[in-house]
This record gives sequence, C-alpha cells and structure tokens, in this order.
Amino acid sequence: MTSAALNVCVFQSEARPGDTAYHLGRLEKAAIDAHGRGGHLLVCPELYATGYNIGRVVRDLAEPVDGPLVAAAAGIAAKTGIAIIFGYPERADGRVFNSAAVLDGKGRVVDNFRKLHLAGPYEKENFTAGDRFVTVTVKGVRVAVLICYDFEMPEAVRACALAGAQLVAVPTALRTRYSHVATAMAPTRAFENGLFIAYANHAGSEGDWRYCGLSCIAGPDGDFLAQAGAGEELITAELDIARLRRARQAIPYLGDRRPELYHRSLA
Amino acid sequence: MTSAALNVCVFQSEARPGDTAYHLGRLEKAAIDAHGRGGHLLVCPELYATGYNIGRVVRDLAEPVDGPLVAAAAGIAAKTGIAIIFGYPERADGRVFNSAAVLDGKGRVVDNFRKLHLAGPYEKENFTAGDRFVTVTVKGVRVAVLICYDFEMPEAVRACALAGAQLVAVPTALRTRYSHVATAMAPTRAFENGLFIAYANHAGSEGDWRYCGLSCIAGPDGDFLAQAGAGEELITAELDIARLRRARQAIPYLGDRRPELYHRSLA
Repeated sequence: MTSAALNVCVFQSEARPGDTAYHLGRLEKAAIDAHGRGGHLLVCPELYATGYNIGRVVRDLAEPVDGPLVAAAAGIAAKTGIAIIFGYPERADGRVFNSAAVLDGKGRVVDNFRKLHLAGPYEKENFTAGDRFVTVTVKGVRVAVLICYDFEMPEAVRACALAGAQLVAVPTALRTRYSHVATAMAPTRAFENGLFIAYANHAGSEGDWRYCGLSCIAGPDGDFLAQAGAGEELITAELDIARLRRARQAIPYLGDRRPELYHRSLA
Repeated sequence: MTSAALNVCVFQSEARPGDTAYHLGRLEKAAIDAHGRGGHLLVCPELYATGYNIGRVVRDLAEPVDGPLVAAAAGIAAKTGIAIIFGYPERADGRVFNSAAVLDGKGRVVDNFRKLHLAGPYEKENFTAGDRFVTVTVKGVRVAVLICYDFEMPEAVRACALAGAQLVAVPTALRTRYSHVATAMAPTRAFENGLFIAYANHAGSEGDWRYCGLSCIAGPDGDFLAQAGAGEELITAELDIARLRRARQAIPYLGDRRPELYHRSLA
C-alpha cells in the first residue's frame, strides 16, 4: 500500500532575488534530498526560478517554456527521476505570465500552468492572466496546479476537484500578515473538497516582503500531514488515495452540491 | 462609530432533546443577557427549539412558521427588542424543513430560511431541502442565514456574499470530530468573502452525538472577534462595517473572481 502511494515533497526556499543560477543549484540539492526520501513529486514556490518580489526585472528574466530556464529544471527532474512543479516567469507571444511548468521524472514538460487570478498592482502591472486549469497524472494520482491567489478563490479549488484532482499543488508567496491562509485555509480547502493540498511558500524576505513559511501538506480530513516552520525546509508526505475515498464517502461534498441554486443566486 | 455598529450575540446552548419549553425559557434568559450587553441580534444553534439529534420525533414536533413555537420566540424578541435567528423544525405543505425563522426586534417574522444542503441519513430521511437563499437587513447590516452543512459548501457562502451579505449567521450542530470547521473553516469563510460570520453551535451531548461548542464570531481579516469554549455560553461582538470595507479594498476577492473560467471548467 505504502509503496503505491504518491510521495510528495514541498521545497520551502529562501530566494536570492533575480539569481536564477543560485535557485537552480538549490533545486538540484532539494531534488536529490527528495529522491533520498522516496519522493515522486517536488513542488516549488511561486516564481521560484527568479524570486517573487523582484519588481519589473521579472519581465526581463521571463523565458519561453522551451527556453533554457525550464530546460535546466527539466534536467534536474531527469537526473533525480522526480517530477517537479517549477515556478518561473514565462514569456509567450510578447506577454509575460506567472507560470509553473509541470515536469515529469523523465524531464519532459507535460503541461504548463499560468496563474489565473493576478493579485495586487505588482502582478497586474507585470503579468497577463492565464485562462486554463491544468490537471496532470503523477504516479496514478491526478494533480492540479494553482498559484497563490488562485488558491484563495474557493471556486478555483472546487473547479480542480470537479475536474478530478486528488492533489492540488500550490506554488505561493505568502507574507506573514496572511499566515492564516497557510494555517487555516489550506486544511479547509483539503477538507471541503476531499483532496490533498501541497502548499509551497517562500521563506525569508525579499525587499520589504517578509514571507511566513508555514508550507504544508494537508489531507482530506482537514488535518496536516506535514508542516514547515519559518525557514528553508523540505517537507514530505505519503498521499494515501484510499483515505481520500473514505473522506469523500463520509462527507460527499462534491455530490451534495446544488449548483442550480448557486447560479440562480449569482445571476 | 461604535454605537452604529451591529452588536451580534451567539447563544451556544446545551439541549434537552425534545423539550421545547425548556429551550424557550433558556432563550428568554439569553435574550435578556444579550440585551444587557447591548445586543441587536441573537443567533441560536441548528434546530434550537427541539434539539438537533432527536430522531424521527423531530417530525412530530415540527410546526408551521406561523405556529405557537415561532410565536413564542417572537414574543421573546419583542420583549427584549432583539432580533433572533431561531432554529426549529418547520411543517409546511405536508413536508418538514430544517429551518431558521428570522425575527426582528418587534417580534415580526421577517423571513424564514430552510436548510439547502441536507447532511447524512438522519436529515435526508426526515427533512426536505429548501431552495432559496435569505438575506435580511438588521440595523443597516445585510445578514444572510445558512445552516450547518450549507456553510461547509464554499459556493453557498459565496452566493450570500455576492447577494450583498455582510454577515452570515450560521445555526449549526457540529460534533467534536469536526471541530476544525469551527476553528479553521469559519475564519476562512470570513476572510475569503470579506464578511463577518456568526457561527452558533450546540454544547454538550445528545444521544451518541457530542458537540464541540467552539461557536465563534469571525471577521473579514480572518481573525476571531469572539470564541466560545465547550460549554453553554453567550458570546458577543461589535461588527464594524468600515473594517469590512477596508478588507475588501485590500483584497478584492469578489471583484477578482473569474466566473467564466469556473463555469467552463465545471460544464
């Protein structure tokens, strides 16, 4: 049973703003550590490749999904045999997206998620919003990706659940004043949708932004399977899909929805 | 400023299963206490009038909204000048609903909410689900009502927020094993919708059900304004609507939604 479960790792990292070579080096070390723990999937924070709060330079550092930045991360995935969800600024068609490439354990780009909800002036000035949910299969588990503010929209996590997601991986950049998103919202999202959440935050500071850390892996019973502290840290949990099925039988949130009421009300 | 704020009280009560006279007596005492605290609105637990976990007898005790049970509660509202959200089993058109009458401070029935999502076999066997959201105005504040499982559906609280609710009052019957709904989900719902939550639970036990208490009043910054312990207790908070406006300006969750994506995904 245990050997069939998905082993997910979350890399809570401290950024050196703009230093992509440093971040790739740290990623390789984290992937080697994750491999040593039996990891199958490694989730990195939002805009991991460059750091999050780096101002307009984020646009200069943006690369296409088939550029050298994602290729370097894919090389780490191939070397360690671990799937990686890799946050980076993406350049495409003259626009810049806040993206996460989904790399499989052979180093292939299996999908590419673009943040759907842009948060605040920094993101709205520098990025274009995506328009597509992404769900991939890793070791037989359906994995959706959302980035930071996306996850705070209950509709977005619900959409992933209804599309079949069993795990939602969330690269994020959460500041200390919003720590309740990590401590209260993350387990609530897992519980109310009957799925697993892997919430990957930054640690430390970038400019005047101080991150709270507190990355976590939460389960469908509304509890924490793993929880990081404030500093750089790799956390790990085995996701038992049988547990997800039991939780959904005990409380069938997805089946008990009454969408006709919500839509009428929202019309 | 403070005198214009809505003072909301939550009565966390211990039931005597089936003993409506006892519950009306306790309600009168709670309403007098709430009046002494400057309360404008008093929220009671789910099926307060009869107790929640009382088996099929709940159907025998059900009364129309214009029957003597709601009239007695309305008399308490009129006597104390406090609006009351009063949970009771409602008989109407040969069916039974899990309802909450909304009584104003003059003892008038201003609306009547019927639980929209029935939870588990007990409710599905004994009740019919309602089909309408309810929002009323109390002291200038828009107040929606949801009952227990309704509140656990993120879509339902969102629908209330989009309909203009500034406070969602939630009569509930939450067992100890689900205490994270009170401690993590309640402040999350307040935060993700930019509104106040008044979550009114039972204390003590009924049959093999043990309630966790932990009733609370949560605010739009994701914090607790008041929180009960495990036993019978009246909790109180002043709801500052200016704070709600500031929270919604800081993070405009309602305005940043992208419903066209959710619907496409959910189709």
